[in-house]
Amino acid sequence: MKKTIGILGGMGPLATLELFRRIIMLTPAKKDQEHLRIIIDNNPQIPDRTAAILGEGESPLPMLVGTARNLEKAGADLIAMPCNTAHFYLEPLQQEVHVPIIDMIKETVQRLTVDRVALLATDGTQASGVYRRACEAQGIELVYPDEPDQKIVMRAIYGIKSGTAPYRFQGDLLEVIEHVAEAGAEAMIIGCTELSLIQPPENSPIPIYDALDILAQVAVEQALGVNRD
Amino acid sequence: MKKTIGILGGMGPLATLELFRRIIMLTPAKKDQEHLRIIIDNNPQIPDRTAAILGEGESPLPMLVGTARNLEKAGADLIAMPCNTAHFYLEPLQQEVHVPIIDMIKETVQRLTVDRVALLATDGTQASGVYRRACEAQGIELVYPDEPDQKIVMRAIYGIKSGTAPYRFQGDLLEVIEHVAEAGAEAMIIGCTELSLIQPPENSPIPIYDALDILAQVAVEQALGVNRD
Repeated sequence: MKKTIGILGGMGPLATLELFRRIIMLTPAKKDQEHLRIIIDNNPQIPDRTAAILGEGESPLPMLVGTARNLEKAGADLIAMPCNTAHFYLEPLQQEVHVPIIDMIKETVQRLTVDRVALLATDGTQASGVYRRACEAQGIELVYPDEPDQKIVMRAIYGIKSGTAPYRFQGDLLEVIEHVAEAGAEAMIIGCTELSLIQPPENSPIPIYDALDILAQVAVEQALGVNRD
Repeated sequence: MKKTIGILGGMGPLATLELFRRIIMLTPAKKDQEHLRIIIDNNPQIPDRTAAILGEGESPLPMLVGTARNLEKAGADLIAMPCNTAHFYLEPLQQEVHVPIIDMIKETVQRLTVDRVALLATDGTQASGVYRRACEAQGIELVYPDEPDQKIVMRAIYGIKSGTAPYRFQGDLLEVIEHVAEAGAEAMIIGCTELSLIQPPENSPIPIYDALDILAQVAVEQALGVNRD
């Protein structure tokens, strides 16, 4: 029996669209009826996660809970949340709903086979420590871009949120990856779903782990009932 | 007060994805929070509409009703259904839910400014007569591709549903448009959401009206409260 995937979306809408697209593409199907049922609540009114974590805005938790409950009520058997920063609220959110929410951060870090990895993410995800804790649990050292490069990363993320075409930031992305590779990172996590919209540079000096890709894979596997723990 | 758009989807998933994408792109927004709330029930288990209309399969109506009610329960204020063929069931479906369902067929035909239009759609949409009735109500003559061309159209639609890349059918699409233009059609309706996934040929001899585009526009206008009747 296939499960219904719920997508707690809107953070932002394009990342939600991209997760939906990747789930469809990963599903083995030769006709409509073989595809998975997916219920999406694209709720962009959820307050900005980075602002809240940095103490500059209201908590998104109440609206995250409301949206997750709405998905549960609508028939979702599992929930995918295509926003890395929002994973800061994963524990209290999970306590408020019965259906399991996939931990995109943990799933991503579990796939790493290196000792030192760099994270491309919002200031909020950095400050939240979600990737730091997941990496520490596996004895992996987590490093960040230096301050000027982190500003470039944030400009790309909020540029994409405001409607700039993602490919415009491809050169920036490659530059930041080259800098962290020079500084000793052996791999790179794309830990912001807006950055996942940028086509990853083919000439990256280090392997790239895209958290959104891994979330799509896990969602499809769990919905199809394969590789279940 | 912005309204929440419900998408009765899964017919097929890629057309649902494309409607979601077009709604996001048509929404004037500079940050996540300015985007529209959109609830999608991508329910590909809804039985094949063409098969049912041709008397070769079970009716999709009960599952259409269940899915529409699910969207209503989840908070949708209006419903968009990105499947032309499913509009055969619009009237009995609308009777079972309180929120208004946009009539994609009527909205599309109302925008036509020609006397004779050709329809590219499934055999089911042809047999259902949904476009014929809408055109007749406006005194517009509706014509179809000839039989060999209609077979090409059906092959494209079910090819896309089974995972073939839409651009592969672009040459076919142009050829069919050229034939109906030669036969006297002054415009062409793209009346199947799978065909909407094919980039419309720039060198088409007649104007193209894409029903999925018009559905996206109407959904955004109604959700934003502009141009409301």
